Amino acid sequence: MARWQPDARERLRQAALELFAEQGFAATTVPAITARAGLTTRTFFRHFADKREVLFAGEAELPAYAERLIAEAPAGIGPAALVLDGLRAVARAQFEGRKEEIRQWRAIVATDAGLRERGLQKRAALAAAIGDGFRARGLDATRAALLAETAVTLMYVSVAAWLEAGDDRKLDAIVESTFATLRATLDT
Amino acid sequence: MARWQPDARERLRQAALELFAEQGFAATTVPAITARAGLTTRTFFRHFADKREVLFAGEAELPAYAERLIAEAPAGIGPAALVLDGLRAVARAQFEGRKEEIRQWRAIVATDAGLRERGLQKRAALAAAIGDGFRARGLDATRAALLAETAVTLMYVSVAAWLEAGDDRKLDAIVESTFATLRATLDT
Repeated sequence: MARWQPDARERLRQAALELFAEQGFAATTVPAITARAGLTTRTFFRHFADKREVLFAGEAELPAYAERLIAEAPAGIGPAALVLDGLRAVARAQFEGRKEEIRQWRAIVATDAGLRERGLQKRAALAAAIGDGFRARGLDATRAALLAETAVTLMYVSVAAWLEAGDDRKLDAIVESTFATLRATLDT
Repeated sequence: MARWQPDARERLRQAALELFAEQGFAATTVPAITARAGLTTRTFFRHFADKREVLFAGEAELPAYAERLIAEAPAGIGPAALVLDGLRAVARAQFEGRKEEIRQWRAIVATDAGLRERGLQKRAALAAAIGDGFRARGLDATRAALLAETAVTLMYVSVAAWLEAGDDRKLDAIVESTFATLRATLDT
């Protein structure tokens, strides 16, 4: 089995997502996931702490990634422009081309209180990291917190619109339009 | 004891807050709370499901209150103006004059993962209610979600600034200035 090792993590993830969708998150056991993936439970626990982490492991790096994106942005760029550029980069790199998978992911998370809770924590951790990133650029606490929360809001609202859209608009473009909508709405 | 009944809830709440601050949330038992309040555990459980609910019971009505505020606003008022008016009304009615108590409350919640989680759920429930309120006024899903999340962000960021301020500025005024800061920041 050694030669399959590099794919083990992704095979386990795929098997878990399929089973969560087919029979529900609560009813799916780790042995059922490993049986579907053709791997051992020992291999499972080498990659994930528990079945819940299969759903959130991919996003563990997002806070650090966001903070790095802010740290590495050119000195001259304004904070709101930085948010917009950053969100569009994340949209292209992390979301585009994975619409069905993300739709499925959200449907699974919505079924379980513990998963929804974990989702809220993830969101709060991301906002905290973005706030840290902006304070490191010299913004005061209020501005940094406003930008961080607004960035996360723009991403979540844009992803919801993207998943619900009947057309094939890119998330990138939706993010830009959501940002414009927010600015216009705050003037009403 | 019957003649004390009308004050029982508030006495239990005060006793619990004192003990949480003195010895920590985890170390405080319901019997310790009732002993401090001079009431029975039976009375405690008539008012609160558990010691965690002592900290969150007062805010259980906030989502419904926010939704009502939006429903009852004059037809002609713009959605952003409605958010600002609503937040200022909440600041005056629910926060002003309770600075020390709210500061203490936040310090307790920050010490415990379960309490922080409950705080995130509370925040999400409030945003969902505000979003419902705006959709009921005919706003599309994107605008309603943006306004709801922005309203909650403005309130949380303003309260943090209010608690940290060395002066005695009113939360009402801080909300107004935070709103202006957000609008200005989104133009950068």
